Amino acid sequence: MQNNPDKILIESVKRLLRRDATTRLRKIARKTHAADLSSVFHSLSIPNQRRLFNLIDEIEIKGEIFSNVDEDTFLNIIEEITLDEMVEILDLMPKDDVADLLGHLPVEKSDAVLEMMKKEGSEEVEGLLHYGDDTAGGIMVPDFIALREDITAREAIESLQEEHLDVEMPFYLYVVDSNGKLIGVSSLRQLVVVPPNTPLRDFMTTDVFAVKTDMDQEEVAKIVARYDILAVPVVDDTNQLMGIVTVDDVIDIIREEATEDILKMVGAGEEFVETKSIFKNIKMRMPWLFASCIGGIVASFIIGYFQSSLSKLAYLAAFIPVIMGMGGNIGVQSATITVRGLATGRLAIRDIWSVVFKQLVVGMILGLFYGLVVGTVAQLKYTRGLFAMSVALAVFSSMTLAALAGSLVPMTLAKINVDPAIASGPFVTTAIDIISVTFYFFIATTLLGI
Amino acid sequence: MQNNPDKILIESVKRLLRRDATTRLRKIARKTHAADLSSVFHSLSIPNQRRLFNLIDEIEIKGEIFSNVDEDTFLNIIEEITLDEMVEILDLMPKDDVADLLGHLPVEKSDAVLEMMKKEGSEEVEGLLHYGDDTAGGIMVPDFIALREDITAREAIESLQEEHLDVEMPFYLYVVDSNGKLIGVSSLRQLVVVPPNTPLRDFMTTDVFAVKTDMDQEEVAKIVARYDILAVPVVDDTNQLMGIVTVDDVIDIIREEATEDILKMVGAGEEFVETKSIFKNIKMRMPWLFASCIGGIVASFIIGYFQSSLSKLAYLAAFIPVIMGMGGNIGVQSATITVRGLATGRLAIRDIWSVVFKQLVVGMILGLFYGLVVGTVAQLKYTRGLFAMSVALAVFSSMTLAALAGSLVPMTLAKINVDPAIASGPFVTTAIDIISVTFYFFIATTLLGI
Repeated sequence: MQNNPDKILIESVKRLLRRDATTRLRKIARKTHAADLSSVFHSLSIPNQRRLFNLIDEIEIKGEIFSNVDEDTFLNIIEEITLDEMVEILDLMPKDDVADLLGHLPVEKSDAVLEMMKKEGSEEVEGLLHYGDDTAGGIMVPDFIALREDITAREAIESLQEEHLDVEMPFYLYVVDSNGKLIGVSSLRQLVVVPPNTPLRDFMTTDVFAVKTDMDQEEVAKIVARYDILAVPVVDDTNQLMGIVTVDDVIDIIREEATEDILKMVGAGEEFVETKSIFKNIKMRMPWLFASCIGGIVASFIIGYFQSSLSKLAYLAAFIPVIMGMGGNIGVQSATITVRGLATGRLAIRDIWSVVFKQLVVGMILGLFYGLVVGTVAQLKYTRGLFAMSVALAVFSSMTLAALAGSLVPMTLAKINVDPAIASGPFVTTAIDIISVTFYFFIATTLLGI
Repeated sequence: MQNNPDKILIESVKRLLRRDATTRLRKIARKTHAADLSSVFHSLSIPNQRRLFNLIDEIEIKGEIFSNVDEDTFLNIIEEITLDEMVEILDLMPKDDVADLLGHLPVEKSDAVLEMMKKEGSEEVEGLLHYGDDTAGGIMVPDFIALREDITAREAIESLQEEHLDVEMPFYLYVVDSNGKLIGVSSLRQLVVVPPNTPLRDFMTTDVFAVKTDMDQEEVAKIVARYDILAVPVVDDTNQLMGIVTVDDVIDIIREEATEDILKMVGAGEEFVETKSIFKNIKMRMPWLFASCIGGIVASFIIGYFQSSLSKLAYLAAFIPVIMGMGGNIGVQSATITVRGLATGRLAIRDIWSVVFKQLVVGMILGLFYGLVVGTVAQLKYTRGLFAMSVALAVFSSMTLAALAGSLVPMTLAKINVDPAIASGPFVTTAIDIISVTFYFFIATTLLGI
């Protein structure tokens, strides 16, 4: 869990900031990898973030810090730098990152920045800003190597020596026709292996995995992951090559999406809220808790309905928690397995009945076991056979139904194209709470005749 | 969610298998990307998996199927092929995948396979088998390009044209000294850009990110992700280059680890259980449910203790579900945010107090709000001020404590080096159930004097 090198670095930086040891801080800023330096920022107070940032000498490193820190830190830092400095930094950054950052700024400010940026860069950034944040277009970099099909391997190598020096991922060479349409792909590796006079068209691979600019980033990530490729070309509707999505961005997407899914399942927002303000935390968590509150109130009405039975047999109430808890827990297990299975592609919607059936069987077996356990406890404590049997039956039916609902609800939601991660949580837990309590009281009052 | 091309492929294959259309199946097997073909296997019955596998003509494709399918499918398929065929397939596969697969076989069988494999390959595989499954050594490939520091760029390119043709990731060229110790890294890109007579030592990067063979795979993945590199070299204690871990394996690790964390949090095993047998499903989910069962039984004893109060005021029981539910849900939210934050490095253990404090404030504010909501409902329904106040106070204290426990427990576990994902679930939910109920009855009986 603990990342020791980070910890040491953070402690040193903090100590030096306290002592105001600017020379040594400058040296650390120069010698530390930008990715490591970025992680330091997250542990500093806002004034210290600004101080450290100002101690960085190289503009490129400042750009890498911008690329790596989270939105809040970025906004804190830029508050105190001049527009000129900001533009100078952005001009040297990868254009997809610039587009991301500008998306966080108020429109007037981002317009002002675009106005001042170098023409070529600002046009690229403006192009990227048109695409949805979470689409292939929104995450692609417009820097790639595109060569014409009729040039030879030697010419291709020569062109690499003269231009394309700033391309992020120079391993794939995309081959385009005279209209800029993508027709093939080759690699630097192939260039050095074939005879120098071979034209690209003779050795390029024509079977290219390309994605459209509007494809969802999660789908793009799936393609890169499935086919083990380092970058995927992005094309528009006319198959014109617009950019590439590189594997390092795909890794970030996969992590983000996993975090998103986990947080959505418990109704704690879609982005990571802990680093956000308390107000945002509350706002994001409120709705899910509201659903569960309504469910709890409904349960209170149901129990209220059995009030007279409760007056006659007060210890009926004692087993409400264990019946609700067992149902809730097994339901959450089934829902989690199903949602994660769907997200990773290990479960397919078409397998709905086999998945639900398996969960149902698991729920029945576990329900039988825990029904017997809890029923035995009830019998030992209250020595009233029919009551113990009611408790056992209630645990059994609650767990069985919960396992059923936990798998059926997300599967059904996915089938009707609702994100199962977002809706399963409140639906499943609330439904299980209400059903468990109703069953329990119904079974107990019927069996005991109260 | 739905992956349409897969669906169409799977339906076609199933239809053709029913019709026994072997010629067309052979053609599909030949024309489909191995990664797509592998996903078909997961949707087929065991006999059909074997039939389809036998219809694949190319040995390499069979190897890719082995690399891509899950353990169960692999074991199903090999049941019916000869040892000779299996060895022929394994000989052509990446050695890290072979080592993985052999790890799933009984020792006698894997020994027999190693015996029959080509000497060079089997030695590499045996080497890999010595490392732990989840370490850098266990996931590295022993194929990489290592060149001596004194050779020139031109000689390096020539060597690429003659050998290393089967290297998986030919983008980094590792530079070693005469003892095979890693001293630098260069790239194919640099080779074509520098003057041909420059020796590697003059343009290689000496600042290499290398990892030790025993580093945990999760740490390796973090390094690749953080520094945006395509492969990381793996060295032994003497800095001898042993292999490389490539970014495509890192993607798989990141996905696996995310799934593991999610499943662990709800006590549904560490691996994905849905595709496993019902028995395995039950075995993995049993212990967590047991913890929650004990918690529920303890709660029943506590409520039993307040039996006489319940006889006097039966509707006390009505609000047990909402108080437990609200506490449980906010606790799970806080625990999830904290566990995921620790896993992704967005939260650090040293920030324990600021994290817990923030969660506490969030819990208090949300507790205040929902306490008022539920208290108002109680007042409207039962019009007894002190009772409504008890309910409101119980919701407030349950939610506050749950948010506190939900963040404090995982942070503390991480501090003492226990995996917070595995232990937070049962600890937090059980504790919250018991505390919520106790507080509720204590507050209500005190305020109402019953």
